[in-house]
Amino acid sequence: MRWARTRYGGHTAFAIVEDEELVLVHGSPFGEYQRSATRLPLAGAALLPPVIPPTFYAVGFNYVAHNAEASARVSSVAIPKRPEVGYRAQSALIGHGEAVVKPADCTGPFEAEAELVAVIGRDVRRCSRDEAQASVFGWTIGNDVSARTWQRADRTLWRAKNSDTFKPMGPWIETDADPLGATTTVTLDGDKLAEFPTGGMLFDPYDYICAISRYITLRAGDVIWMGTDAMVEMPVGHTLGIEITGIGSLANPVTEESAP
Amino acid sequence: MRWARTRYGGHTAFAIVEDEELVLVHGSPFGEYQRSATRLPLAGAALLPPVIPPTFYAVGFNYVAHNAEASARVSSVAIPKRPEVGYRAQSALIGHGEAVVKPADCTGPFEAEAELVAVIGRDVRRCSRDEAQASVFGWTIGNDVSARTWQRADRTLWRAKNSDTFKPMGPWIETDADPLGATTTVTLDGDKLAEFPTGGMLFDPYDYICAISRYITLRAGDVIWMGTDAMVEMPVGHTLGIEITGIGSLANPVTEESAP
Repeated sequence: MRWARTRYGGHTAFAIVEDEELVLVHGSPFGEYQRSATRLPLAGAALLPPVIPPTFYAVGFNYVAHNAEASARVSSVAIPKRPEVGYRAQSALIGHGEAVVKPADCTGPFEAEAELVAVIGRDVRRCSRDEAQASVFGWTIGNDVSARTWQRADRTLWRAKNSDTFKPMGPWIETDADPLGATTTVTLDGDKLAEFPTGGMLFDPYDYICAISRYITLRAGDVIWMGTDAMVEMPVGHTLGIEITGIGSLANPVTEESAP
Repeated sequence: MRWARTRYGGHTAFAIVEDEELVLVHGSPFGEYQRSATRLPLAGAALLPPVIPPTFYAVGFNYVAHNAEASARVSSVAIPKRPEVGYRAQSALIGHGEAVVKPADCTGPFEAEAELVAVIGRDVRRCSRDEAQASVFGWTIGNDVSARTWQRADRTLWRAKNSDTFKPMGPWIETDADPLGATTTVTLDGDKLAEFPTGGMLFDPYDYICAISRYITLRAGDVIWMGTDAMVEMPVGHTLGIEITGIGSLANPVTEESAP
């Protein structure tokens, strides 16, 4: 089942993706919902980020090759020995098709990081691996857009990774995927630039859910971005695409802010 | 004017604090609201975190003395030369009077950080200092509870500062305070342990709002925790209080998790 979010009649609504249409629902897949009689063509519909997470978790380094590349190019990092998560800001989220806007004063590498996203479906605290698996509502795709000069120079990741529009997520949540057996592909204007096995992680989503939930209650709608194995430059005027087999494709054009 | 949040009839509601009572409202102070006829005695009412922020900003080092103490005791940090903000997780928020629960396996210093909190009242992007001042809805108090051993050992602040119950905030939002002329006092079971001028910051809230909003749209309900000048141990079985003159007092008992 595929869950999207869209705008309709001046409001936002969850919708089921079915037969190339969006079936709008009353309520939420994270609580109770009812199908409405309203159906919109999927083509041309605004696809918002499929959920606004109460808490937005992000894994920093979770693939050995990315760790080596990031160490060489961004900042020195040891290979993580345990699952330790970080945070991103929901203020930076945009949906499929929306433009990533590069700030006018942002210089240096401006890169996509293609990530699997786990969407939590129920409250979970101190869970077993079985409970962690049962707690995942579904899967989507994230692009952890990163301004490398700021990432190196700043004390935190606030503008390097959380400037407005820097967190595309979507196009929808797929509840029936097998993402650890999937392939992630990164394209620029449709040309393949990188490809990696989605599941080739140091720690998988269930490792993270178990580790986080030892101290923190995960809530329905929380998302965990699982890190990347590919860093790809995002030139202004082009469209960056990320496909994860069995989930879908997230594509966003890159534009530039007019000078302040 | 003082704005609180409480539970009533199985729901949460905003409330105006008036004459030792809570006047419940329909709606939100960040949108439209109407006073209801329901009044509850303030004494004994559950005071929830006065707002659940869409994005939860926190300043790391913003007082020179704290910077020196933290450098000596936690990790080496240079004095910030510009306002760079970080993030905390709304999952960790609790209200006035709720217990801070120290995890069973948390060893080493377990400390309070007494902080002024700015609550944003309107969307703001690329603002002037005047606009920054106008964007603040009001002020509250935060305790940035920190487990120092994890803070030193972990790659991120995920459990050191974001474990469940580690972010007391309240007791309410005061819209008419002059916090930069205020005094912050930290008490343990009512005994004064520390005191500092709230406004003795390296960068004040308006500096931060201007800096953040250069790249990020601040939203109504967002909070910015402004850093601390006092780190105070929180022993289990005692109550940690923070007063900021003109705003109010936030007090939370400290308990210990039973072993998992």
